[in-house]
Formats: sequence, structure tokens, C-alpha cells
Amino acid sequence: MAPVKKGILERLDAGEVVIGDGGFVFALEKRGYVKAGPWTPEAAAEHPEAVRQLHREFLRAGSNVMQTFTFYASDDKLENRGNKLSFTGAQINEAACDLAREVANEGDALVAGGVCQTPSYLSCKSETEVKAILKKQLDVFVKKDVDFLIAEYFEHVEEAVWAVEVLKETGKPIAACLCIGPDGDMHGVSPGDCAVRLVKAGAQIVGINCHFDPMTCVKAVKMMKEGVEKAGLKAHYMVQPLAYHTPDCSCQGFIDLPEFPFGLEPRILSRWDMHAYAREAYNTGIRFIGGCCGFEPYHIRAVAEELAPERGFLPEASEKHGNWGAGLEMHTKPWVRARARRDYWENLKPASGRPQCPSMSVPDGWGVTKGHSDLMQQTEATSKDQLKQLFDRSKCH
Amino acid sequence: MAPVKKGILERLDAGEVVIGDGGFVFALEKRGYVKAGPWTPEAAAEHPEAVRQLHREFLRAGSNVMQTFTFYASDDKLENRGNKLSFTGAQINEAACDLAREVANEGDALVAGGVCQTPSYLSCKSETEVKAILKKQLDVFVKKDVDFLIAEYFEHVEEAVWAVEVLKETGKPIAACLCIGPDGDMHGVSPGDCAVRLVKAGAQIVGINCHFDPMTCVKAVKMMKEGVEKAGLKAHYMVQPLAYHTPDCSCQGFIDLPEFPFGLEPRILSRWDMHAYAREAYNTGIRFIGGCCGFEPYHIRAVAEELAPERGFLPEASEKHGNWGAGLEMHTKPWVRARARRDYWENLKPASGRPQCPSMSVPDGWGVTKGHSDLMQQTEATSKDQLKQLFDRSKCH
Amino acid sequence: MAPVKKGILERLDAGEVVIGDGGFVFALEKRGYVKAGPWTPEAAAEHPEAVRQLHREFLRAGSNVMQTFTFYASDDKLENRGNKLSFTGAQINEAACDLAREVANEGDALVAGGVCQTPSYLSCKSETEVKAILKKQLDVFVKKDVDFLIAEYFEHVEEAVWAVEVLKETGKPIAACLCIGPDGDMHGVSPGDCAVRLVKAGAQIVGINCHFDPMTCVKAVKMMKEGVEKAGLKAHYMVQPLAYHTPDCSCQGFIDLPEFPFGLEPRILSRWDMHAYAREAYNTGIRFIGGCCGFEPYHIRAVAEELAPERGFLPEASEKHGNWGAGLEMHTKPWVRARARRDYWENLKPASGRPQCPSMSVPDGWGVTKGHSDLMQQTEATSKDQLKQLFDRSKCH
Amino acid sequence: MAPVKKGILERLDAGEVVIGDGGFVFALEKRGYVKAGPWTPEAAAEHPEAVRQLHREFLRAGSNVMQTFTFYASDDKLENRGNKLSFTGAQINEAACDLAREVANEGDALVAGGVCQTPSYLSCKSETEVKAILKKQLDVFVKKDVDFLIAEYFEHVEEAVWAVEVLKETGKPIAACLCIGPDGDMHGVSPGDCAVRLVKAGAQIVGINCHFDPMTCVKAVKMMKEGVEKAGLKAHYMVQPLAYHTPDCSCQGFIDLPEFPFGLEPRILSRWDMHAYAREAYNTGIRFIGGCCGFEPYHIRAVAEELAPERGFLPEASEKHGNWGAGLEMHTKPWVRARARRDYWENLKPASGRPQCPSMSVPDGWGVTKGHSDLMQQTEATSKDQLKQLFDRSKCH
Repeated sequence: MAPVKKGILERLDAGEVVIGDGGFVFALEKRGYVKAGPWTPEAAAEHPEAVRQLHREFLRAGSNVMQTFTFYASDDKLENRGNKLSFTGAQINEAACDLAREVANEGDALVAGGVCQTPSYLSCKSETEVKAILKKQLDVFVKKDVDFLIAEYFEHVEEAVWAVEVLKETGKPIAACLCIGPDGDMHGVSPGDCAVRLVKAGAQIVGINCHFDPMTCVKAVKMMKEGVEKAGLKAHYMVQPLAYHTPDCSCQGFIDLPEFPFGLEPRILSRWDMHAYAREAYNTGIRFIGGCCGFEPYHIRAVAEELAPERGFLPEASEKHGNWGAGLEMHTKPWVRARARRDYWENLKPASGRPQCPSMSVPDGWGVTKGHSDLMQQTEATSKDQLKQLFDRSKCH
Repeated sequence: MAPVKKGILERLDAGEVVIGDGGFVFALEKRGYVKAGPWTPEAAAEHPEAVRQLHREFLRAGSNVMQTFTFYASDDKLENRGNKLSFTGAQINEAACDLAREVANEGDALVAGGVCQTPSYLSCKSETEVKAILKKQLDVFVKKDVDFLIAEYFEHVEEAVWAVEVLKETGKPIAACLCIGPDGDMHGVSPGDCAVRLVKAGAQIVGINCHFDPMTCVKAVKMMKEGVEKAGLKAHYMVQPLAYHTPDCSCQGFIDLPEFPFGLEPRILSRWDMHAYAREAYNTGIRFIGGCCGFEPYHIRAVAEELAPERGFLPEASEKHGNWGAGLEMHTKPWVRARARRDYWENLKPASGRPQCPSMSVPDGWGVTKGHSDLMQQTEATSKDQLKQLFDRSKCH
Repeated sequence: MAPVKKGILERLDAGEVVIGDGGFVFALEKRGYVKAGPWTPEAAAEHPEAVRQLHREFLRAGSNVMQTFTFYASDDKLENRGNKLSFTGAQINEAACDLAREVANEGDALVAGGVCQTPSYLSCKSETEVKAILKKQLDVFVKKDVDFLIAEYFEHVEEAVWAVEVLKETGKPIAACLCIGPDGDMHGVSPGDCAVRLVKAGAQIVGINCHFDPMTCVKAVKMMKEGVEKAGLKAHYMVQPLAYHTPDCSCQGFIDLPEFPFGLEPRILSRWDMHAYAREAYNTGIRFIGGCCGFEPYHIRAVAEELAPERGFLPEASEKHGNWGAGLEMHTKPWVRARARRDYWENLKPASGRPQCPSMSVPDGWGVTKGHSDLMQQTEATSKDQLKQLFDRSKCH
Repeated sequence: MAPVKKGILERLDAGEVVIGDGGFVFALEKRGYVKAGPWTPEAAAEHPEAVRQLHREFLRAGSNVMQTFTFYASDDKLENRGNKLSFTGAQINEAACDLAREVANEGDALVAGGVCQTPSYLSCKSETEVKAILKKQLDVFVKKDVDFLIAEYFEHVEEAVWAVEVLKETGKPIAACLCIGPDGDMHGVSPGDCAVRLVKAGAQIVGINCHFDPMTCVKAVKMMKEGVEKAGLKAHYMVQPLAYHTPDCSCQGFIDLPEFPFGLEPRILSRWDMHAYAREAYNTGIRFIGGCCGFEPYHIRAVAEELAPERGFLPEASEKHGNWGAGLEMHTKPWVRARARRDYWENLKPASGRPQCPSMSVPDGWGVTKGHSDLMQQTEATSKDQLKQLFDRSKCH
């Protein structure tokens, strides 16, 4: 029998760094088990070996959190997905809990039950209906006794608050993440105000996941932290960004980039980019640091390696990874051996090998572009207005 | 009991397309089981579940060949790798054979035992010594009764010929691949002449793997084919290239690019690049089409999907993949739905998200650069001369 | 005898578009008559034929303003320039006035006497001393009876206000331009506040010149306009930006880009970029539209061609320019003929032909970078502080 | 009365470096005096002051050759240009000779009369007719007593040979340049063979002008030199390339790039690129080194400055140019002062400021692309065939 593990809040209260996992949906899409478009997690029931293996790789890479593979596993989303599944929503959610627990037991990891935004909300269902949908997933998490809960990937703080309110009934610790950037949620609520609402609703941990690159997400969490502190409240902070460079995306994130989701390869962060990210997140005061879409096990390992001095240990997978490229010291070619050093990799500006491709795109949609003068043709006023009509749930009323 | 499968030569003689697998070494490095630098495959014995899962993903993606994870598993290489392993070379090779066979039995795939270039050759050991090293791996393949043999990743055709001569003694079909480009091997032997030597030595299948991007490899195999035909010989052709764009590399391939091996992300091919590759390889007359470093399961699936009209069926993993992005038809945002069509993805020039990075690098080393006038400073004469001194095994004599 | 021309204010009051000239300093540097570094205009006296010819080209391209080539022609700057000149400051300023007048008389152009920021200000001389320096140039302008005055290229609004106060004494119309972007002047005074101060000091026309690309400058002038209107004041607006793309520069503009001043070629705007600029400036309500460093005659012609519908006529140089590439209709190759249309050139994304170069740089110096997450390492706080110490004239006190 | 100057062959026989001028057609298009499309040089008669000034700038930059501005001034071309001119062909050619002579007399420069390819050739006129057209220009050159003759910008060696045969009758020295790259002329005749034919026809100087970037042109001239030497002949060599980077163009040069002629700005070479070019040309044994389209006076000055050690003097315009950026030493900002050194500029990889643009284009037309695997879609066979039909004058027969 394993010793009782410290809970998520005990760890964060003690100032420990908690390393999250990476992006299951995108990683399993590339491995052949998730369909891009619906993005639903039925593989938990259909192909448990594939999901288990990915959990193991993240654990080995240093993750302290095995998040149940239940993204978009609310019943309304599963029904929506086009072709019929062989498993019920409950079966999928239960299978995901079992897999997360099985692997968590193999190391120092907690199980986090995860919910996210629902089609019900976007199609203007009532608060009662939306909460009922979330409640169904939650019942599985309670039955399977997950260690804590994560409400994540909400574009509207209103729905995220509803989710926190539902999760709160379990008495388990709650982490709440929006998929927004520094410009705020789809109603224009600033990151600081969003965070305040989530904390007031009962979340002990607040942050950002998905939609933007690591540095942008860290910046938005920083704004959350400032908002919470200004309001005289207290919280822990988390961040689980994309593993894609997105300097060119609008307020709606990488969905609007022309490359989403099948041409994002040139944007993938290197392990060295992850070192910079982990350091920046740590310096900002974030202690729950993980990843979302695009994060592969080696990205999480890089986070764990960067923060090894603070944590006092390397992840298991570092047995197969030389520090800052040290494994190259044994290469036969002298110029490859010369790459076995930190400043080489820190300063490398990697080429794309794609001379006919640009370095930035113009986002699709009614996105608000910012920063570059050459993007000014999409005028802000119009865009924001159109956004209001199209994406604010306020159109429901 | 499964029905007896058609052998590799039966398939190729019948004009079938045989789809290879992808790159184990690089994929498992990212998953945390292979160390970059030594690149040895002890994970076959240490972490069989990880290797088995990757085999399964390639099988599911459409692979007809489960290549034993025995790259760099010759005893001289394993001894060379810096830190001591818990398993012997024989144990690693046997475990790899068992895993390949186990998964091959789950579908329509053959097991191929793989050998590659040895440190013994480069350190000027004799033909007898080099052959003895290769023979040890081969003994395992015979004992485990693999379906056919692949000698691959040879930079010097001389060593490849020796390998073929050793493999020939088993009576099993032999595929032989060099890791060269259109400029030929490290002694300057042209692809056409290399192929002729390999066929004369007894290889029934010849081709190229690793070191260059798909279109460059296809071009080099085309030169092999022309050489073989001109010599009045007959052979089948295979290609297993990188999944990285390498327009800027010199005759020694991606090893010399400054991004090798930890900054290659921006060069990763998209699934749509793989469609173009598969079509080009097919049109060139190549029928054994797979991948090497960088190829993930979704890359192999793309090859299988492109050639589905010729093969008459889709791979199993296509149940999780809409044709040319069709899965996006259900997206909530109209501009993302608009991406659910072939011409969108075929014409997309994906941005890198890295405005401070170039699109091409200058290769390190004594590589011979070609094509671009702005690279002319590295004069060809000097380079070739230095190469001769440094990499021609002729320096051994 | 030529008929009396309408003055600058008459034209602007009547709603006419006034087209400025381009960048003498940079154009003449490339022609061999100005030295980069000192950037002083002694060529007006030394090589009048070269200066006259450039005036003529701008006149022919559509310019209504012949600005005297007197940039950096204050005595303190001329003394500062390293090697001794053969002409006095007064001689240079007089020669410049004569050349501008000579060419202005050949068409519908006014002569504007120009002053700019002084070394005296930066080296903490007193208001009295700075004004005395400016007064010396002004005396020449009065003697030569220029049509109006332009105070331009001021990084500190304080010095610009002093300049306007000096110029006001002549009774001539005054245009005042800062070389700042949306972030404001070197003391952090916003564009809106800067404009209010300049108008209150007596400038009838306010705007921005140099340091940033056209769209950025237009944006900053828009902020000026909003500030002036909010303050209940009235003014005309002008803009004379760089002809270089500068999406990556910090608050100090293109000086800090690593390419300044000898590697800016890849950033040069095309004539089509100028069409977009002219339209944007016009739509913003700016009616005095010209250019600064990098603007060649064909750039000014493009501005005049874009605004031909509003102005009712084409510039003289359009006799040698087909509308939107129409001159290509006679090309022998059909695919070049196919380029003789507006949408071709409007949509072209021109390649750099430089695959080893990035698309953006990191500015040197203590510049404040903004917008891109990957530039976040240069923290804003520190930079602004350092700027304060280094560039605020406040350090003088 | 000026002392008698050394002729072109005396200089080259003595091993002197002769510096050519730059690109009149493109420079004067930007200045407003040449129309892109027809590209004819009527400005020599219409606006002599503009042409004279450009001659002066090149002289001042170091040019030893004032080439008459008579490109496309054959009668058949002038008649072809769409709108009627106010001057006859003879008047234009005479005016051009007078301007060249006037400026040549101001320094150490010779006058070269220039002819180029004719519409008559491309429209299948006979050898007699083509020669008659060229003869008319030549009559002016004889009357005006130019110092030597240049036949340049020929895509077909056949027509160039005819031109040389006509020019030879004057007894003046003849330089002959094709606008081809390493792939040879439009009939596929190699640079080496082309050069041999030109030398045998009577040219004392052979080389390449226009269509390709400097390093590509130098490479093609090197092939010419090898051909001439292999044939046991003797010649002097010249090169006058583009000032645009063209790594991506096909055998027909920059005409086929989508950016031609109105979007080439990002490709413009810097002065530092010109240093590298001048050195490479010199090292290749070329002694007549100039420029064609895109070359501005500062580009020619850079050539003269690079070769100052060999020539023993700097050009006049260097009085306004610090060696390798030395003029920046007086800049107020320390980080700009730090740029006043050779290695800074030699190693700079200048950014384009265009993050939405690629670094390479796909050439239009039936161009044969080469080198990059990602360009392989345009199959060589088809292209060459189509070229044959379309551009080989052989279709005339």
C-alpha cells in the first residue's frame, strides 16, 4: 500500500512546484486515437493502452498530475460529435478515471478530474441546464474519488463560474482555467476580473490553459495575479499553455490561425523554449506549471529539468536526456560534439527549412489583430462589434 | 491461427504498395525512452510497453512492416554508449524481435530485422571484424525467424555491401538502404553506382533512408533506379526519409544542420507534405514507402491515405481522421469549417510563428553546400578534400 | 512671372491634399553626397546639381513642398561633424533655400524652411542657448523668404515647443513634427499631449516624421488628432514616415534596429505599400502627406497616384508609369503580362531572396519591446527606467 | 585639353580593375524617367539633366565606364513601345552619346556604346534584318566616336554572335554579355560554349549581365572562362549582375519571379553584399566589374571600396562614406557606435520587417526550377519542352 500522498493544496501551500501534464487531445490525434474536429476522448474506453501509455510518459517526464482524459466528455458534446460512439459518456469518464488512477499510483502524482466548456452554454441553454450537464461528469469523479478538480478551457468567465459553483459541492480542491489571453474573455472581461470572479466562486487555484503560447499565457496569469491581489484575495496560480508559437494570433487564440489544426508543425516549441517558459512562469509566482495542446512528454521533461534546482530532483525520463544536450559529447563529428553546451541551444534561432513560407499569418475570423502596423486593415471597432454579436453569449438574451 | 502472410517479395512482385513504419529512435526520444547522442535501443528490453505501443500505432496507421527496434544495437555500438546498460546486446535484439512479432501478428504486417552501420567500420576495423559484429545481430534474427532483413543507414556503400553479403547467408530477402542524397556516398560513389553494387551483392530491394527530406530521398532513389536499369539489373525500390524539411543541408544530411538534433521542430513535415511525398514516391516507381527520423504515426497514416486509391483500403487509424480535414466540418466557427477541404490544406504555406528565425541555415562541418549563390563562400574543392581526409574510410589505409 | 501660389494654410483650409517630398538625407547618401553618421547637408553648397536634381524628381513625382535641405544644418551640429567643412552654416542654409526656390518655381510647390533637434538640447544647454541656435537658421529662412516653416525630427516635445516658439516670431505658418511613435516622446509624453502642447505653442500643422513605418506613424498622428480635438483645439495634420517596414522596433524607432543604417534594404516599402499608406493617412484625416528617410521619388509618386481621384490629377512623372502595373501589358512573356493588374500587386507578398535572414530583429539598446511574447525578456520596467536616465533630458537638471 | 586616356583593352591587358556603372533603366524608373514595361531610354533626349546626373553619380562612385543610355534604343523596339515618342531613334542615341561623353570627360572614364537584343530577332526576322537594325545604332556610335562597344542582354547566343559580327566592322574593342545563368542560353547552350562562340566572332571581352544575382553571375562567368581556356582561346572577362538576391529563380532569371519588376525591394543587396561580390569576382579572374538592374551609385562605390587595395585609390564618393561604417563612430547612442566595425556588417543577417512574406518565391512561367526538393512539382522535362517551343527562336524555322 502506497503512503498517503500530499494533496494539491498542501503542496502549493508549502511552496512546492507542481508539474502538470501535457496535451492529450493533440498527442493522441497524432498517434491515431482522437479525431480532430470533434476532439472527443472516447479512446479512454476504446483504446485504454494508448491512453495509459501517454499518462506513463508524462509521469516519467515529471508530471505530478494525471488529469483524467475527459476533455469534451460532457454528454452534450459526445452526442454532438457526428458519428455514434460505442460507449456512453459515463463509461468514457469512468475509464478515464481508472487509467489516470492506475498510472498515478505508479509515482508521485495526483488524479485531477477535468471538465471544460459545453455546447449547451454556447447554444444558450440556461444556467440550470449547463450545470446539470457538468454535474453528470462530476458524479463520475466523485464515485472514482479523484484527488481534485480542474475546470478548464472556458472562453466565457460566466460559464467557468458556473462550473466552479458545481464543482464546489464536492468539497474537493478546485482549479479553474480560462483559455484567454491578455485581452480577456469573449465578453471582454479582463484576466484580472476573471480571476477575481473565479476565486470568489470558490476556486483555490486559477490560471490559463490552451489558446496561446507560453509567454502570452504567463503574461495573462500575471494579470490574474495582480487582479486577485488588488482585490485583497488569495489564490494559487497555474498555467498550461500551448506548445506552439503564436505571436500573430488574435484574441481568440490559435483556433483562428490559418494553420489550425493541421499545419501547426513549424510553430512547435523546442525543449529549450520550454526552459525559458518554465523559468518565466516560476519567476512570475506560478507554481502549478504544465502544458496543453502540443505538449509532448519531452516538453514536460524540459519544464521539470529547468526547475530541478528548485525541486531538488530530476524526473525519471532524464535518465535518457543529457543536460542541455550533453548527450552529444559522444558524437563522432567534432562539430556536433560542439553543440553539447547550454549557450549553443539557448541562442540557436532554428530555421524552418520552409523558404516559401512566412513567419507570421493573418488570423482568420473576426479576430482583433494588434501590434503590427501591417495588420491594421482589420479595424478594431468592427471586429469587436462583430465578436460581440457572434461570440458573446449575450446574443442569447 | 492466422493465415500465412504474403512475403515482402511476393507483395512487391505483385506490384503492391508496402508501407513502412516511422522513426522509432526520434519518436521514443521525445517520449522519454531513447537518449539522443548514443541513440541506442535498449528500451526494447527496459521499457517494452513503450516500444510495443509505438509499433501498434504504426500498424494502426497502415504500416506493413514492423522493423525490429535494433538500430545501433550492434555490440560495438552498445559498448560505446557511455554508461553501462542492464541488458546484453543479445537480450536487446531478442526483446526487439519479440515486440515486433507480437504486434505484426495483430495485423497485416511482416517483421523485418534491421542492422545499420557500425563503429567498427568507421574505426577502420577489417572486413572480417565488421562482418562478425553484424553476424551477431543476425544470429538473433535467424533464431527469432524474422520475415526479411533490412540493412540501412550506411554512409559508405562499401560497408553496406559487406552487410548485404553477411545477410545473404540467411537466405531471407534483403533490403539495403544508404543514408545518402543525390551527391552519393561519403566516398563520392553516385546513387546509381551504389545501387548497382548492392544489387550485385544480393539485395532484392534497394533505396535510401534518413538524412534528407522526402523529396530529396525520392530523387536519390530515382537515380538508383536509373543506375540499376542502365546496368541491365532488376530490383525493387524503397524509401524511408526524414520527416524534416532539409533544403539547406550539405551532402552529409541533417546531422550537419545547426538544429540537429534538438531544434528541428520548425522543419517537421505536415501530414499534407506527406501526401505529396507519397504521390511522388509512387510516381517514381517506388513501392516500399515508409519513414525514418521524425515520422510519427500520423505521417505514416497520411502516406496510407494518399495511396488508398491504389491499395483499395484505408488504414485503421483513419477512423479517427477525416479525409483532407473533413473532420472540421462540425466546428462551431464558420472560418474553421471553411478549412475542411483539400485545396485549403494543399495550398497552405504554414507560418513558423518565429519571426526572428531564418528559413534556412548554413550547415556546419565540412559539408559541401550547393545551389545558393549566397552559400558559395564554402568552396567546393576544399570541402571535398577535407571530407576525403576526414570521412573517407580510405584514411584507414 | 508666375501667378501667386496658394499658401500652405490656404490649401489645407480648403481641404486640399498637400503632398510632401521624400527623404533627402538617405537618398543623397546612396547617391554619394551625404555621409552616414554626421548626416549633415553640406551638399547643398558643395554639390548643388545633385540636390537640385533630387528636388526636381520629387516635384515631378507630385510634391507640393520643396523642403530646404537643411536637416542638421544648425551650427552646433555642423561643428560637431568630425571633419571640417568648406562652407559656413549660413552658406549651406542659403544654398539650400535657393535650390528649393529654384525648383519650386518650376511647378506648383511651396518652399518650406526646415529645422530639427539640436545637439545643444541633448547636451543640456539652456532654453536660451537652444533657441539662439535655431534662430540662426531661421534668419536665413526669413532672408530668403521661404513660404512656411517646418520644425521636425524632435524626440523631446520640450525642444519642439521651444522651436515653435522661435519660429512663431516670423509670422510664417508653422508645421511641427516629432519623430515619435504611439508610445510618445522620450519623456513618455503621449502623442495626444505632445500635439496639444505644439498647437498651444503656435503650430498650425502638427504631425510625425521619421523613425517608424507609415502605418505606425499614421496611428500616432491619429492619437495626436484625438488629443487635439479632445482639448477643444484645432489643427491640420501631417505625416512623413520612413519608407521602411519596422514592426519590430522599440519606442526609439529604427535607429535601434540592428540594420540601421546600412542594412535596411530588405525593409524598403514597395510602391504598392505606399498606396495603402496614402489611403490610410487620407482616411485618418491627414492632408499633408509625404515621406522621410527611404522615400524615393517613386514612393512619392505612388502617394500622388493613390490620391489622384481626390486631387483630380496625376503627377507629371506618371507619364512614365502605368496605373497599377499597366505598363507590363506589352511584355513578351504572357505570365509577365498577367501581372498588369491591381489585385496582383495588392496581394503579392514579396519574397526577400534571403533564406538565411529572419523577418524581425531584436532592437538594440534599452528599447522597450512590445507585443511579441518572445521578446518579453527585455522587461519593460527596467528599460523605461534606464531610458529615463539616459535619454530624458531631465538628467541634465 | 584632357590627356589621352588608356583604352579598355590597354587597361585590361595591364591587369587593371575596370569598374563598370550601375543600372540606368531601373534607377531612372524610380526617379521617374523610364517606363517599366517598354523600358526604353528616350529620357536621354527628353530629360538630359536626369541622365547626366546619374552618370555623374556613377563616375563619382568609381565607374571607369560611362555606358551610353541606349538600352532598347534600336528602332524596332522604340516603335514597339506603345505610345509615340517625340524623338527619333537617332536623336535618342546621339543624345545618350553626348551625355556619356560629357561626364566621362569629367574623370577617368571611357564611353561605351551599348546595343542589346532586338524584337526583330524574337519575331523571327532574318540575320540580315537583325543586323541592319543593330547597324543603325552603331552608325551613331561611330559618328560620336565612342571608345568601345558593349553588346549585352542577349538571351540567345546566336543573336549575340550576329551583334558581335556587326560591331566588329567598326574596329573598336568589343565586349559581349549574355543575360544567362549557369544553365546556359535559351537554346541550352552552356556558358562555356557561348563564350567560345563570342570570342571566335571577335569579342575581346565576354561575360554576363543582368537576370541573376552577383554570385550566380560570377559562377556563370567562371564557366565561360573555363570554356574559353579549354578551347585554347584568350579573352578578358566582365560581369554586370543584378543588385537583387535571386536564389529562387529559374533559368530565365528574375523576369519570372513574381516580384518582377514592382516588388523587388526586399531583395536589394546591401553595400556589404557588394563587397563580397567584388571580392568573389576579382578572385575568379574577372577584371571588368560593374552592375546592372538595381545597382545604385552606392553599390558601385562599395565595389570600388572593396577593390581599393588592388587599385590603390578610393573613389571620389568615399569622401562621404566611412570605411565599413566608420562614420557611425560619432553617433550619440553607444549601441549605434558599436556598429562602426567591419565584422558587425559582414555578419549581419538583415531582417525584412515583413513577417507575412516568405524568403523565396516560386518562379512563374515555364521556368525550370532546380535545387530545392519542395520545388520539384514543376517537372523539368515539360518545362524544357515548353521552353523550346516558346523561346527557342528555332520555332521560327
